[in-house]
This record gives sequence, C-alpha cells and structure tokens, in this order.
Amino acid sequence: MKRQIAILGSTGSIGTQALEVIEEHSDLYEVYCLTANNKVELLAEQAHKFKPAAIVIANEARYDELKQLMSDMTDVKVYAGARALDEIVEAGPIDMVLTAMVGFAGLSPTIHAIKAHKTICLANKETLVVAGELICQLAMENHCSILPVDSEHSAIFQSLVGEDENPIDKILLTASGGPFRLKSMEEIAHVTKADALRHPTWDMGAKITIDSASMMNKGFEVIEAKWLFGVDAKQIQVLVHPQSIVHSAVQFMDGSVKAQLGVPDMRLPIQYAFSFPKRLPLSGDRLDLFAAQHLDFFEPDLKKFRCLAMAYEALNQGGNMPCIVNAANEIVNRAFLEDRCGFLQMGDIIEATMQRATFIQKPTYEDYLQSDAEARRIATELLKGRVNSEK
Amino acid sequence: MKRQIAILGSTGSIGTQALEVIEEHSDLYEVYCLTANNKVELLAEQAHKFKPAAIVIANEARYDELKQLMSDMTDVKVYAGARALDEIVEAGPIDMVLTAMVGFAGLSPTIHAIKAHKTICLANKETLVVAGELICQLAMENHCSILPVDSEHSAIFQSLVGEDENPIDKILLTASGGPFRLKSMEEIAHVTKADALRHPTWDMGAKITIDSASMMNKGFEVIEAKWLFGVDAKQIQVLVHPQSIVHSAVQFMDGSVKAQLGVPDMRLPIQYAFSFPKRLPLSGDRLDLFAAQHLDFFEPDLKKFRCLAMAYEALNQGGNMPCIVNAANEIVNRAFLEDRCGFLQMGDIIEATMQRATFIQKPTYEDYLQSDAEARRIATELLKGRVNSEK
Repeated sequence: MKRQIAILGSTGSIGTQALEVIEEHSDLYEVYCLTANNKVELLAEQAHKFKPAAIVIANEARYDELKQLMSDMTDVKVYAGARALDEIVEAGPIDMVLTAMVGFAGLSPTIHAIKAHKTICLANKETLVVAGELICQLAMENHCSILPVDSEHSAIFQSLVGEDENPIDKILLTASGGPFRLKSMEEIAHVTKADALRHPTWDMGAKITIDSASMMNKGFEVIEAKWLFGVDAKQIQVLVHPQSIVHSAVQFMDGSVKAQLGVPDMRLPIQYAFSFPKRLPLSGDRLDLFAAQHLDFFEPDLKKFRCLAMAYEALNQGGNMPCIVNAANEIVNRAFLEDRCGFLQMGDIIEATMQRATFIQKPTYEDYLQSDAEARRIATELLKGRVNSEK
Repeated sequence: MKRQIAILGSTGSIGTQALEVIEEHSDLYEVYCLTANNKVELLAEQAHKFKPAAIVIANEARYDELKQLMSDMTDVKVYAGARALDEIVEAGPIDMVLTAMVGFAGLSPTIHAIKAHKTICLANKETLVVAGELICQLAMENHCSILPVDSEHSAIFQSLVGEDENPIDKILLTASGGPFRLKSMEEIAHVTKADALRHPTWDMGAKITIDSASMMNKGFEVIEAKWLFGVDAKQIQVLVHPQSIVHSAVQFMDGSVKAQLGVPDMRLPIQYAFSFPKRLPLSGDRLDLFAAQHLDFFEPDLKKFRCLAMAYEALNQGGNMPCIVNAANEIVNRAFLEDRCGFLQMGDIIEATMQRATFIQKPTYEDYLQSDAEARRIATELLKGRVNSEK
C-alpha cells in the first residue's frame, strides 16, 4: 500500500522538491493533502497533477480564487484557514506529515499531527526553535517519530543510524557561512537584500536565505539539534564549511566521527525522511570529491554574526527565550526583505527584544502564543523607533 | 564475564596497541593468548604483564630462549611453531582472535579460528588478499563474524552500521598517498629504504610502511574491501587524501555518502572491533577540523604507483592471481628492506611474476599454498636475475 503524505507548504522550495521525490517514487508514495499560504495558482496546479484528497489555503482571503481554479476537480476538497490546517493533518489515511511551511505558523499543525500519531518529517525548524521541549514531550507521549528534513539534521540522523547504544559526544554542525563570510563588519553594515539573497551553495526560499546570511538559520539549527538529538548546547559545535559538502557530523566517545556528505540537494534529506530506514534511488548529480578537491573548516565569527551567538544565548537561558528570538527574527527578516531594516540592525532589534520581552522559565502552549505575539509587538515597535530615529 | 582475546602478532604495531586497548578496558577484556614471530623478549615481557593462558613463538628456533624467559611464570603455557599457532586459536575459552601478524602466514591460523567459530578481528589483510573467496565462504558456513581492523575498512564498516537494507553503490577508499606522492618518476626511481620508511601520517611496521610507499598496501585494501563488503572492483574508488582524516566512506544509491573521520590512531579501529556494536571511551587526541582546515582529495597516479594498478588487475583476473601478487610482493618488499631491490623494480618483478606463475581460476586451499610457493620462487629468481644483469 502506498504511504499517504500531507505536505504543509507544498508551494515552497521544500514542498516542490518533495513533490519531485513523490513523483519519482509514485509506486510508494501518494499525496493526501497539499497546503499553501498564498500561492493559489501553484497550489491548484499541483492539485491537478497529484490529485490529493484535500488542499488547504491558509490565507482565507484567497479561498474563492482557489475554489474557482479547482472547479473542474470536484474530487479534491478545498479548505481555507489555520484551523483547517490543524484539522486536515489529523485525517485518518495520512501516514506522514511534511511540515515545510515557514515560521511560527508551523507549530500548531505539527502539534495536531503529533497528537494524531502521524510521523512528522520536520522541515519547519521554527517549530522546535519555539517549543522544542513541548514538542519532544508530546512526540514521546504519542509514540510519534520526528524525522529531520534539514540537510544538517538529516546528516546527523544518518550518522546516528545503528548507533543507538552509543551516546553522542559532540555534534559538528556545518554551515556554509553564507554570502558574507569574507566581508568585514564595515562591508556587512551596507549589504543589500539582493546581496543577502545570493546564497553561495543552497537555493532556498527568501526567509531562510536571509536567515542564512545572518547565520540566524545556523543558530536555529543549533536549537533544533538540541531537541532532536537530546544534547546540550555546549555539545554542538558550528563549523563554517564553505563547500557545503560535509552536511554535518557526530563524534562519539571513542573519538570516532561519522559524517554524511553529498552534493547540495534537498531532495535527498526529504526522500530519506520518507523512506527511512531504507534508501531509494535518487536521480541527479553524485558527489565528486576530486572536483571538490578542498574541504575547508573555519570557526564562525560570532562578532560578525551576532545572531548565531544570540541563538546560543537563548538556548542557554531556555524557557520561552528561543520563542522570543524566533518572533523578533520573523519581524526583522521580513522588514529586511522589504527594505525597512538594515542587515546589522536585525541583530540589534532581536537582542533588544530579548531584553524586553517577558521571560518564562516553564512556558505552556498558551505562553508560547503570548510570547510570540509580545515579541513581535516589541520588535515591530523597536523597528519603527529605530527607523524614525534614523530619519 | 570478560571476553577472552587471542592476539596473533602481539609484538607488532597493531598487537602492542591492542594490548593498550585491553589494558584501558581490563574490566571487559582479557588476554587468553599472545603470539609472536621472533621477538621473544617483548613477548615474554607482555606475558608477564598480561598473564595469558598461553604464548606461542612461531619461529621454533627461539623456543628455548622464550621458555627460559618464562621460567618464573609456570602458569603460562609456552609453545612454538606454525602448528601450535593453528591449534591455540581453537582453544575453547577464546571469544575473539585478532590476526595482527604479517603476510601469508596469517592465512592458516585464521582458517583454524573460523572453523572453531571464533570472531575474527582481521588486521592481517593478506589473508583476504590471498584467499578472500575461501575465507568468506568458510566464515559464512561457520556463522563467524570477520570484523575489520584496518582503519579504512573499519571506517567503511562503521559507515555501514544500521544500513543493512541499503546496498552499497560505491566505496571511497582513502589513501594518504605515502611519502612519494609528490615525487616525479625520475625521483622515485632513486628513493631509498629510509625515504620509504618515513610515512607522513601513520606509524606502522616496516613491511606495511613499504607497501604504503608503493601503494601496494592500498591495492591490497581494495581486494580486502571487495571480500569484506561484497562489492565489485569497479565499485571501489581510491582517493588520495594526504591528511588521513577521512578514513574512508560509502556512497549509497540515493547519492548519500557516509564517512568516518578521526585522528590517525589505530587503537580506535582495534577497540571498535573488540566492542562492536558498542563504543567505549578512548583516551587520546580528538579530531580538530579547525586545525586540519584543508581536506584534499586527488586521483591516484596509476603510472607512478603501478602496484595499485596491478592489484586491481589481479582482482579483475581473480582466481589465485591476488595470491601470486601477494607472494611476489612479500619477496620484493623484504628485498627492498634489505637493499637488494630498487623501489620501481618491486613493481617490475611483481608484474613479471604475474605473467609467469600458473594461473588457477578456482583454487583450493592447497592450490593457494602451491601458488604462494611458486610465486615466491619466481620472484626470487627474477630478483637474482635482475641483480645479476645490473652488475
């Protein structure tokens, strides 16, 4: 029987590549449900091709438009709104839910999917950044697997296969270093949106590309790794590795380091999450270490990339602090993409938000919702204030 | 209960490091038996320290001397000769046999140990080079595990843990390239024994160090990998990696590459073979990729390192051809160490021996013994002829 997959965020970079994987292995996988935030045309196009049982558009304002586009496909149920997202992931036939939407919005449907005992293929790292402890607890209670889709975490996960008895000594989390790795502080202060969107090795959505440029993405990955693999912050070491060939590695207590390597191709971790523990053929380029020749590793510059330092700081403080950082980051990331915020200013505002938002040591789910809202409000105000003061 | 270990070749580089591992984990492991070829003093010293049930000196001429040295340790049985080696590995209490002797001599005791259902920790690669098919068949029939101790094969083995369902697409076998990697053909023609013994990354016995300089060692490892992991010669790619940090890697059919990395320390693969599937703490340096900084990968130069090409050729021809190559190599290796043979001449003589020795497609154990003797005779004659003709 084919495994039924729900793709939350099917029109994004991960979502479209997941559909390529499913198309390549249509004998094994079937799309049960597709969801998007705003892109109705692409969602409708995907629905025509993959014929899911249901589709959801998160932005209710686009519902009529989508309904219209789907008028020739009456077999496909069409829903809208955040609540519909929460409900659809609970549908009986679904085996796996790929959470590939962006930001805090991933939290609620992921919780609903876990409670419905679905296997989670986790691409929405913000879910674990915001509420890692709560999510891990829920997954344990519901005997539900969370399989990483981020290339780094997939690499760690692959390196850990068969090593269940062997505790992790250290995680070596690699980072391309982004487009500004070699720039000075002075130069970074003046980079533009266009500069930041030019990622050297990975082709991704806009939000994560900006997060990569600021290395906040790597900071989030540190937090994600903590929850996925049950290690302390001090056991996670970030290595800047400009070639993005070693996707990450694990050191065991005998000093042995196991790593996963490959060309930068997100279809691999997506497919591995679907097929685990089996591997399936995957078309495309193969790693050529002769062509790569040099693999380099450098320590990250935490002065230049303060967002990474702040993520470690949030992880050390614990509680709702990572949630606060994530919310502030979502605000400044969007502002930067809309030319309302400078590159270094993003870090300033996140730091100021961390200082001002209410700290809660043991947050509940409702606390997370409130912290998220509060931190967004504070970051937005700081942004306005800063913008005004610069006029 | 402590696991009882027999170390064949305890006075060599692998043997002494194995004893360090056992000493570090004396709560888990105990030495049942130690054997050496000639070094009676060191063997007696080890026996005084580890108090095995028995020791064997392969060279019977040294028996009296050893017996004398052990006169104060009447609990330790002392034997001599090749037949004693074959018998001692069959002893009931032994759980694991570490085959750390050098050359063709490893074959017979390994066969006896397999037939007695002992777990083999295989450091004597010549066993699989000479008679890989026979050994693998025997191991299967006797439900006996062969765990690799060579750092490269341990790396491959570690990369394959938990991947039982997933066929190997390609093995990436790394090689330091030895001390002559950057030398020209002209320069290589004039290298001395002292040059060849200066290995850039590994501290090993003399025979294997010379084999590393000629890359015959890597050729043997290709053959060893074929038998240990059930792949074809064309699935094994040698990568020259001067830093010896990536100890080897495996590519799966989804393009994912898993590698094992570490500092060059043979205690790790020795200990892993003992403790598999568990890992134990190991003292010593940890990998520091920031210090390493560059990892480089180059194609091997098969014109300069003809021994590697000949090993591939022997593997492709199959039958007793690898046995012939091994025998000729043992002769020229020793001759080079005794200044009776030039560096490039080693390859010439091996190649000429391959052409002259009797080829057998399906050799029996007795055929291997005869092929080994015949090839040694031919290589010795060629060596004399060459030396004479140069006078």
